[in-house]
Amino acid sequence: MAKRWEEISAGKRAALLKSIPPAWTIPAELVPPESQLDVTGFPSDSGWFTSGELEITSKSAVELLDKLSKGEWSSIDVTSAFCKRAAAAHQLTNCLSETLFDSAVATARSLDEYLKQNGKPKGPLHGLPVSIKDNFNVVGVDSTVGFVSWVNSPATYNSTLVEMLIEAGAVLYVKTNVPTAMMIAETVNNVFGRTVNPLNRKLTSGGSSGGESALIAFGGSPLGVGTDIGGSLRIPAACTGIFTIRPSFGRFPTLRAKSGLAGQEAVQSVNGPMARSLRDIVLFSKTIVDAEPWLHDPRCLSIPWRPVPEKRKLKLGVMWNDGIVLPTPPVVRALAETVKKLQAAGHEIVDWSSEGHRQAVDLLARMFVADGGKSVKAILDPVEEPFRPEMAMYADAKELGTHGMWQLQSERTNFCKAYLDRWNACEGLDAILCPTTPYASVEHENFKYVGYTGVWNILDYAVVSFPCGVTAHRNFDKSSGLQQPLNDVCAAVQGCYNEEAVHDMPVNLQLVARRLEEEKVLMMTEVVLQAL
Amino acid sequence: MAKRWEEISAGKRAALLKSIPPAWTIPAELVPPESQLDVTGFPSDSGWFTSGELEITSKSAVELLDKLSKGEWSSIDVTSAFCKRAAAAHQLTNCLSETLFDSAVATARSLDEYLKQNGKPKGPLHGLPVSIKDNFNVVGVDSTVGFVSWVNSPATYNSTLVEMLIEAGAVLYVKTNVPTAMMIAETVNNVFGRTVNPLNRKLTSGGSSGGESALIAFGGSPLGVGTDIGGSLRIPAACTGIFTIRPSFGRFPTLRAKSGLAGQEAVQSVNGPMARSLRDIVLFSKTIVDAEPWLHDPRCLSIPWRPVPEKRKLKLGVMWNDGIVLPTPPVVRALAETVKKLQAAGHEIVDWSSEGHRQAVDLLARMFVADGGKSVKAILDPVEEPFRPEMAMYADAKELGTHGMWQLQSERTNFCKAYLDRWNACEGLDAILCPTTPYASVEHENFKYVGYTGVWNILDYAVVSFPCGVTAHRNFDKSSGLQQPLNDVCAAVQGCYNEEAVHDMPVNLQLVARRLEEEKVLMMTEVVLQAL
Repeated sequence: MAKRWEEISAGKRAALLKSIPPAWTIPAELVPPESQLDVTGFPSDSGWFTSGELEITSKSAVELLDKLSKGEWSSIDVTSAFCKRAAAAHQLTNCLSETLFDSAVATARSLDEYLKQNGKPKGPLHGLPVSIKDNFNVVGVDSTVGFVSWVNSPATYNSTLVEMLIEAGAVLYVKTNVPTAMMIAETVNNVFGRTVNPLNRKLTSGGSSGGESALIAFGGSPLGVGTDIGGSLRIPAACTGIFTIRPSFGRFPTLRAKSGLAGQEAVQSVNGPMARSLRDIVLFSKTIVDAEPWLHDPRCLSIPWRPVPEKRKLKLGVMWNDGIVLPTPPVVRALAETVKKLQAAGHEIVDWSSEGHRQAVDLLARMFVADGGKSVKAILDPVEEPFRPEMAMYADAKELGTHGMWQLQSERTNFCKAYLDRWNACEGLDAILCPTTPYASVEHENFKYVGYTGVWNILDYAVVSFPCGVTAHRNFDKSSGLQQPLNDVCAAVQGCYNEEAVHDMPVNLQLVARRLEEEKVLMMTEVVLQAL
Repeated sequence: MAKRWEEISAGKRAALLKSIPPAWTIPAELVPPESQLDVTGFPSDSGWFTSGELEITSKSAVELLDKLSKGEWSSIDVTSAFCKRAAAAHQLTNCLSETLFDSAVATARSLDEYLKQNGKPKGPLHGLPVSIKDNFNVVGVDSTVGFVSWVNSPATYNSTLVEMLIEAGAVLYVKTNVPTAMMIAETVNNVFGRTVNPLNRKLTSGGSSGGESALIAFGGSPLGVGTDIGGSLRIPAACTGIFTIRPSFGRFPTLRAKSGLAGQEAVQSVNGPMARSLRDIVLFSKTIVDAEPWLHDPRCLSIPWRPVPEKRKLKLGVMWNDGIVLPTPPVVRALAETVKKLQAAGHEIVDWSSEGHRQAVDLLARMFVADGGKSVKAILDPVEEPFRPEMAMYADAKELGTHGMWQLQSERTNFCKAYLDRWNACEGLDAILCPTTPYASVEHENFKYVGYTGVWNILDYAVVSFPCGVTAHRNFDKSSGLQQPLNDVCAAVQGCYNEEAVHDMPVNLQLVARRLEEEKVLMMTEVVLQAL
């Protein structure tokens, strides 16, 4: 007999599917077989999408806004096309947690009316469909964050970022799936189950913003918003080959979003955009900061958008590995090829050591479970939802006293100071280039290491995760080329490498600037892309 | 028989006195009797200071720097004059914890040489004596923070701010006394004893930066640096009628200073300048930010100094009392008279309610003791130093678990959001004007309430404490005019009011701007002063 929490979950999943209208439900005969791993071709190959829908959903956010703001395309048409494609994405990858189709269409209609009446767009995101991660509150809609006990508890207020997106003219039309508490590097939970990677459904789309990455990689969203406390924006972007920025804390508003670890501040959760083009990442970032989020979120910093001039020659420190876990062959090759191209383009490359990274990775892990897992347990308990196996560290954690937390915070500050000094000592260093994860994605249940991203959360540095143009190849990235593991975790990561499974998967790298250098890291990513 | 910790303290006090050379030791026959309460006239009245020394020590930091940078006055002369006057201040008020006279004279000499050699000053603080609170580390010198176990443990590195002051050309010549752990609103500890107010030695100079305030009010320093976690800059400034700014966290570097609650971050300690003129406060603030502290302290914000144009008409919200503790008569009158003058000058005055202040005051108290007093106890224990009675809340505290701390932090963020919304709802509000403390200083052992300052620490707002020009008067501020107490704490505060004791004492008010509006609050204070 199904347990109560299982019944609640089943009901929620059914309601979600039922919220997709027949017109956007893939006809049974067109549904690709489960054996078809890459479903990204479905929209153009199935014949189920009109050419108009395909044209709309192939555009970037910047391109769409150009047409929307001039009234060349209506928001109704654009929104409907993305609703349909997002619905398809969900049916093929299980990437959504909520649909907001009715209110989205109504919003789009009123925005079209607004443009007609006023002769100008409502705001910088006029009429653009924007997808958001499940933890952002939208009035009247659940934010389960993958917890069963939060099913059927619709939000009574909007997250601050949601308010700002609406104010800017965005059309919110879907919320996307996350792992339980957003604290797993794959996207799986007991409510909605597992989101899969549209490029290869045997692989993970990453986590915790893995509903977003799957949706965007499928073309079901031009621009999405995720969050990141240990890599939750950058890992999913890497697993699907899209762009994101992890901003320093205080640039984008985080207020009134839901969290599995509410009130935790030793390492700050941030949010950021995810998209298929860098220009869209810049667009979102500038739009949010220009809207002065510090007037709405007391923890935001009153730092306006500060454009930086393009720097033609960068000095980049390359961290080949972090000394804890070696990257798998496609990532090793991608980094090497990228460095070669950057050198050929005249950029200065120096080696960057992983000194201190082990300490940072350790700090991060201790901070996450410092409440003894009480926060997570308190959300699981009301419906007797069990801990998922991926959450074992929360189930097993012992609570740290506040005195102990103060020591961790002191240690963190000392680490940050040492890192800053090391950066200063490398005269003229502009950025660090390094892997985003050890993987070019990985098969489900095998994502084992977040150290490459988590270090920058501890440091609160501004980081872009970007596809470097190299894809894994079964011939060039053989498992026979795996290096000698450094330790047990490294061996576990290497042991899961499967050259056949990841064949053709994109590889993302991280470009890392210092704290609050969001404008600079975006400029530098553009310069790097020019060299690739 | 004296206990071990008492012997260590006695030794430290003797060594401190012995570090004052005979030339700067007040001749016995000139020492004012203990019954003389106001000793601020001593330098000019005693005949012990030369006219040159008096002229130098009467100048503001800005005036001194003008002469020093042009070579009109030598740093040796200026430094020597302030060393002597600081030595006198200590002998009359017990305001110092360390003297750095020898190294100060050597530094001054080398700066004079530098100017001669290079024809330009070393930096924006060239040759200026700057006093610093005891918790700032200076290589080779103790930072006891009032703890006996930290006596004879000279620092092996400089605080980041100390490094920057030296780089700017400042001459560090004294460190100033603090209460135990810097967590008492008067300046008293088991190492150095009690600092008294030079304006009236029966009264407190406030705490925790009360060594600084006593020294500066006596004319023994043109510019000092204190710290503030609940009012520790603003309360001492108020007790002695000088200026200070409590900046938002991240503007001035706090790294590598000593703390009684190391690693505590729920409410951030900040540091800031103290001086007899507002211009000197501006000078310090701009100098530090211009030196880009974010390149040295990883927790500093890369926000340059952003001058704001003068605003001729301000909209000020006046909070007459905080609804918890009523101000004593001189403060009530000072605020009323100030408001009248501001209205006469054309500024818009609205009432500002104390909504939420009780919650903030309560949060602050809980955050301070969240480690169960373990941090303080760990520093007392090695020499069996007892808890001072003022520290009872630390002795009695129960440790909060990290889960509980996360709840406090959530509550704090909600409070900050509600306050920000309330500010926004008062259209065009520039600042809040309110008391700094309920007192125009108070007799020793009677400072009972820090809620007027602590609320702004919770909010992390930019606040100036400034003398409003009104002084207490036994005829106008009679205890018969005390209002009905609101509660027991309020009754305790009112009960200590002594119209005779505080006669002639200055009253400071707070001008409160929003977070990170340091430039604006300084500009507004200047505008307010013009109206007074």
